[in-house]
Amino acid sequence: MTDEHERRDHLQTLERGLQVIAAFSGRGPLLGLSELASATGLSKPIVRRIMLTLERLGYARTSDGRFGLTPKVLALGYAYLSSVRLTDVARPLMEELTDKLGVGTSLAALDGSDVVYVDRVQRGRITSVNLAVGTRLPAHATSMGHVLLAFAAQTDVDAVLGDGPLEALTESTLTDPAALRERLAVVRERGWDAVDQELELGRRSAAAPVFDSDGRAIAALSLSCGTLACTMQRLTEEYLPPLRDTAHTISEALGAGARTS
Amino acid sequence: MTDEHERRDHLQTLERGLQVIAAFSGRGPLLGLSELASATGLSKPIVRRIMLTLERLGYARTSDGRFGLTPKVLALGYAYLSSVRLTDVARPLMEELTDKLGVGTSLAALDGSDVVYVDRVQRGRITSVNLAVGTRLPAHATSMGHVLLAFAAQTDVDAVLGDGPLEALTESTLTDPAALRERLAVVRERGWDAVDQELELGRRSAAAPVFDSDGRAIAALSLSCGTLACTMQRLTEEYLPPLRDTAHTISEALGAGARTS
Repeated sequence: MTDEHERRDHLQTLERGLQVIAAFSGRGPLLGLSELASATGLSKPIVRRIMLTLERLGYARTSDGRFGLTPKVLALGYAYLSSVRLTDVARPLMEELTDKLGVGTSLAALDGSDVVYVDRVQRGRITSVNLAVGTRLPAHATSMGHVLLAFAAQTDVDAVLGDGPLEALTESTLTDPAALRERLAVVRERGWDAVDQELELGRRSAAAPVFDSDGRAIAALSLSCGTLACTMQRLTEEYLPPLRDTAHTISEALGAGARTS
Repeated sequence: MTDEHERRDHLQTLERGLQVIAAFSGRGPLLGLSELASATGLSKPIVRRIMLTLERLGYARTSDGRFGLTPKVLALGYAYLSSVRLTDVARPLMEELTDKLGVGTSLAALDGSDVVYVDRVQRGRITSVNLAVGTRLPAHATSMGHVLLAFAAQTDVDAVLGDGPLEALTESTLTDPAALRERLAVVRERGWDAVDQELELGRRSAAAPVFDSDGRAIAALSLSCGTLACTMQRLTEEYLPPLRDTAHTISEALGAGARTS
């Protein structure tokens, strides 16, 4: 067996294993081999081998001939959070910000064309949405997504935007890739974004980037508020400055250098 | 190459890949090959191959010859949460409970000998600890751990308890495996646990199990309070009944059957 052959094998097995784990997302607690095979595009024998391996390692379980993940899988995701100290550092500062402004704050990371909530802090009950940690939203329609795309690698942005049109979630969603690229240039320049009902009617939001010690925008800190209580003027004049300050404080605590804006 | 050989190869590559990801937990955002090799017990060439594979897949990055994880790793952990709908279902009910009782509530899963926070809801600032999602605590010293161990497989319990003595975190921590086994039998029978400063001086907590549709205790719902405000009588008479009700409601929403107690 050549070294090149070995390397390709290794890549494939690990890639396929991670692919199978990710396939459970949003699909239900127990899946059969056929479901997993069609979700991943892998053959049933390969999926079976992967699930039995994951089961032996404690990451999966079987029930009535179907497979499910176990809480041990959580530890993989938390390996990232724990390594960058992101939620440790951000949570108390987010609580402070939410207490001060009386609006919910969120921290999200970019994964492909989605933003994924890493942490959320809410007070009271006056929200139209209840989005838990791990929830995904389309990056092109959210202030967090705009901020993360504005500081992402060009190839990642290209992959998200494609040839368009992007999905319209409301009448205000930017669906034209060229228009979104212009917006991203503005966001990169000023260091924040605010959206007016681009994701959902009745809600506005603002976001600012959180940088790590390498200057990478690893998360977006955002707040969102109902249109009745919250004009665009209030959002940008009253809420945005403390939001940006908090994002900056989190970045500093993560070892980021000078402010990017 | 025999089928058995192949299967062992597959197991190893996937196992080692997951091992390397987990090794980042708590170790810092960027690690060198030597650090990763000594953390996992794997050779440097193998670790290097795994990290390059993870980088190609978008799960890792390199910086100055060192390796780090990317937010994409989070999606693996959330595949579990999303598949069991755990945080989606639990979060609004936890917020209701915290609002009603005025104490912080947490949801945790068992991973080896630790409990890992899956979600947390807090109000106000009167807590001595600020533990973010993903934080790990020793199962043997927490009410959540007792609840999860009480309903865990015997082999998992044996692995956690070992021959003892277990680490004493306060004077009240149960360090004798036999004493802890007795406690677990009581917890399994009554369906809840309460600890009095076994993890930390000045804090008490109570926990109840959350069951999935297969009757497995996949999480523990807990609340914790300072000893000054919160006697054991108050904890068990005033806080425990609504805590158990909420855990039961979450279990029902996940498809669990009759109440286990």
